[in-house]
Amino acid sequence: MPAFNPLVEKLSPPPVPSVFAWGRAYQGARGPLIDLSQAVPGYPAHPDMLRLLGETASSRVFTGYGPIEGEAELRHAYAEHVSQVYGANVGSENIHITSGCNQAFVCAAMTVAGPGNTVLMTEPFYFNHETTLAMMGIKTAFVACDAANGFLPDPARLEAAITGDVRALALVSPNNPTGAIYPPPLLDAVFRLCRQKGIWLILDETYRDFMPEAGKAPHGLFSLDGWEDTLISLYSFSKSFCIPGHRLGAITAGSTVVEQVAKIMDNLQICAPRAAQAAVARALPLLAGWREQNRQEIGRRADALKAVMRSLNDWKLDAIGAYFAFVRHPFRGVGSAEVAEKLAREAGIICIPGAYFGENQQDYLRFAFANADVPTIGLLEERLRNFALS
Amino acid sequence: MPAFNPLVEKLSPPPVPSVFAWGRAYQGARGPLIDLSQAVPGYPAHPDMLRLLGETASSRVFTGYGPIEGEAELRHAYAEHVSQVYGANVGSENIHITSGCNQAFVCAAMTVAGPGNTVLMTEPFYFNHETTLAMMGIKTAFVACDAANGFLPDPARLEAAITGDVRALALVSPNNPTGAIYPPPLLDAVFRLCRQKGIWLILDETYRDFMPEAGKAPHGLFSLDGWEDTLISLYSFSKSFCIPGHRLGAITAGSTVVEQVAKIMDNLQICAPRAAQAAVARALPLLAGWREQNRQEIGRRADALKAVMRSLNDWKLDAIGAYFAFVRHPFRGVGSAEVAEKLAREAGIICIPGAYFGENQQDYLRFAFANADVPTIGLLEERLRNFALS
Repeated sequence: MPAFNPLVEKLSPPPVPSVFAWGRAYQGARGPLIDLSQAVPGYPAHPDMLRLLGETASSRVFTGYGPIEGEAELRHAYAEHVSQVYGANVGSENIHITSGCNQAFVCAAMTVAGPGNTVLMTEPFYFNHETTLAMMGIKTAFVACDAANGFLPDPARLEAAITGDVRALALVSPNNPTGAIYPPPLLDAVFRLCRQKGIWLILDETYRDFMPEAGKAPHGLFSLDGWEDTLISLYSFSKSFCIPGHRLGAITAGSTVVEQVAKIMDNLQICAPRAAQAAVARALPLLAGWREQNRQEIGRRADALKAVMRSLNDWKLDAIGAYFAFVRHPFRGVGSAEVAEKLAREAGIICIPGAYFGENQQDYLRFAFANADVPTIGLLEERLRNFALS
Repeated sequence: MPAFNPLVEKLSPPPVPSVFAWGRAYQGARGPLIDLSQAVPGYPAHPDMLRLLGETASSRVFTGYGPIEGEAELRHAYAEHVSQVYGANVGSENIHITSGCNQAFVCAAMTVAGPGNTVLMTEPFYFNHETTLAMMGIKTAFVACDAANGFLPDPARLEAAITGDVRALALVSPNNPTGAIYPPPLLDAVFRLCRQKGIWLILDETYRDFMPEAGKAPHGLFSLDGWEDTLISLYSFSKSFCIPGHRLGAITAGSTVVEQVAKIMDNLQICAPRAAQAAVARALPLLAGWREQNRQEIGRRADALKAVMRSLNDWKLDAIGAYFAFVRHPFRGVGSAEVAEKLAREAGIICIPGAYFGENQQDYLRFAFANADVPTIGLLEERLRNFALS
């Protein structure tokens, strides 16, 4: 057999299916399986969302090819939404629709960096960001975020790491895996640093709809003069509308960035699937109240997890925020994958090993606590207390 | 503003929107606009296809993430279909579902070639294949196909072009843009050449459902021992089911190739949109008769275009096959984009300039004749006869 591309061949198999496999080995001794692995809201999509998806998918209108940049209706509705959320003035020309937020990251990264360039990331990192860059031949450099600082990045360390070959800094806030919510002044300082250094800031905001405070803008960057020359913001409709299977994300950036992204998207898949775009355009205003209820519900789930963790002496909640918690397990010196596998097989809790987010995270596990309702989170207390490495 | 990735910045804007813009400038003097540009079947999706799409899209079952490789139901149904079409024994493990065939090409190319490697193509080429490789930093080399040989590739020329840095040969049959259908013995010879040279054969078969002869296998390669170690075949559900807006394609390859593709797809977009996968799985057997009728209808359209071209002295039909014709215009020395633009603005015929498929194709225009019904194709005769460059 001829060789494979070594950049692809040396990637590990996708992590989430391997974690599911551990869960399938659980015999049920402790009760039902608790899935805190892949970020999937533990409540169903709204019936109106399903109705709209059915209407648009069964319509002839959306069977043909659509605009590469996205349906005009969704670009407009989402630009309005972004303008409202951030108190800014963002237009349709600033929006490019993608087939999910992983694809938005592929497009953003490829727009600003080619093979041999470097993209700077924080560690722990979202594994798909790291593997995406690796498979495209883009180099990565990492700035460690300390548990003692709530896993927030330190601007001085970032500045020191921005060497001449760095083309962009890629951040995730609210963070995956730690859940840490980067405060607006920190994001402002990071933005100004990137602008001063002449690099792009790629900011993945997939989890912004689940922040604890209602109606507070995640940052003020879209109101800064010339934001388009530094910032590329990414978003996912998957979590907020509970429709990851329909694959919809968005890029908010300067119109010149959107033009570059369109060239990439034309090659990657011509356009994002159209029917779901039309459905989400209508759902954006329609389901605002429902999304707010979910935000509050996820806040209650965070409170429930905090209560569980307070009751345990040896498990430490080193970070918790929107959607995720980064939990320090009590088995110092044992690899996180070994802990996670046993936790799945024996205690029926599936979560992602810390090492999947960076080799230095062996003491941690990522709990996607937003997947589970409050009573289910309550079950964690006994299961974790009684869990021992055999 | 920081720099863009030069590999992306130097790409031309996507070609199809620019061609549509020429069409919008047409004032209607010659009658309705005739769209022979982007390959889009000129008949609607079947009502049962729309019903199935509506049913699956409105179902909670498909809102969550799905398997990276594709829905088990579609992988199975498509493997059965491929086995039947080619008289071969292909299994689910040989199938990876993608979001359209452009994405299938991205995945296939990235699986076998990284930045700095070379992929060999024929010229004229499908422009998205060329730009896809360019944006990924993969080098391209071209083997010219002669009009005198019906635009079929010459194995001796291919052999001479397979230098040490070539990792794969990418072919399209039935061909885009020429329509040329590569005969099974030619594909067999090319496969054996690739195997002997130790390179991959990526074969895009998007248009195979529109070949003139019913029930004849496009090639026998899937029955050869060890086909999995050389062949990666690509397909699109867009044209056959008239649902390009739903973005579904497929890769048929060895299971080890499928494992590599899954790593890429996990980064690109986790999985193809699920509801459409489930709908197409059911439509594959259900709409076999309807697809056969469409194949016959497109044969009648090909005959209608042949009759038109026979009646014209100065326009030459140098190739016609499944879906496309490659037409030599009578304006020697005039660029194909200039001819196509005037044809759109003044005669209301939109088509793709030959030069978009290679600089040496200035004498040609690609007619996606399958887009237009027989009466509409009849209108071309008078419009082309009366067309002059002002």
